Amino acid sequence: MPGPATRKRRGIEAEHDLAKKLWRHGFAVIRGPASGAKAKHVIYPDIVAIRKGRVLVFEVKRRTTQTTIYISREQVVKLREFAERAGGKAYIAVKTGNPGSWTFIRIEDLLETRNGNYKVTEELLREKGVGLKELVNMYTCKGLNEFSAG
Amino acid sequence: MPGPATRKRRGIEAEHDLAKKLWRHGFAVIRGPASGAKAKHVIYPDIVAIRKGRVLVFEVKRRTTQTTIYISREQVVKLREFAERAGGKAYIAVKTGNPGSWTFIRIEDLLETRNGNYKVTEELLREKGVGLKELVNMYTCKGLNEFSAG
Repeated sequence: MPGPATRKRRGIEAEHDLAKKLWRHGFAVIRGPASGAKAKHVIYPDIVAIRKGRVLVFEVKRRTTQTTIYISREQVVKLREFAERAGGKAYIAVKTGNPGSWTFIRIEDLLETRNGNYKVTEELLREKGVGLKELVNMYTCKGLNEFSAG
Repeated sequence: MPGPATRKRRGIEAEHDLAKKLWRHGFAVIRGPASGAKAKHVIYPDIVAIRKGRVLVFEVKRRTTQTTIYISREQVVKLREFAERAGGKAYIAVKTGNPGSWTFIRIEDLLETRNGNYKVTEELLREKGVGLKELVNMYTCKGLNEFSAG
């Protein structure tokens, strides 16, 4: 089991990886400041990607095996508010394995836990998740009207 | 004359101030990671503010007196590319004085220096600059059609 420093580094590497890939696909990408005490009172997603006014907001999670990921209610509320202000969509971006592949889950599709938080199970990823290519196509190929309606 | 550490701290304070104000006006706001070696190869504006798909990209500059501000050509090229990808507008956000007031200049309005870089003079700010209230109104009151045309 890797220690906290290693986990943090891998988390940052995953963010870099996603940011780079979205940039290559034509998005303007910005990574939020590192999580820390200073940013606590403000709402910062890990990554915001924008392409011609279409906004994607990401919370990035990395896992080495097919384990369930837990996300606090507070985090989801913040992501949702950010996405609503921006007029965009919020996703949990899950990187599985090493070097790993990406799967994206809309926050509306998250499963609620008994204590009011949220989780992403392997089954949910299979049923509702979309891959990077599919995600990019959703936000670059559709007409603006289709996008607004979706 | 303040030292580099003080200047850096004041620059960060100015970014916080602008981010907070735009957030209060209903924008989703994200600050880029602190400038540093790691981010050098990627394009990061200081602040990106988004409201219902309308994107504003900012390079933040702080000055205590009415001095001319210089911006490198590279920085302007990067801001422009980011704004074009995002489908938004890029501004230099200038905070003057202490506590200070904000004036915004579109990058298209910047003056070119003899060596191909850019500058913002006091005269340019008076002629082409807009205040925070005016900027916010430009991006929150107009209809979408007017916005696209402008």
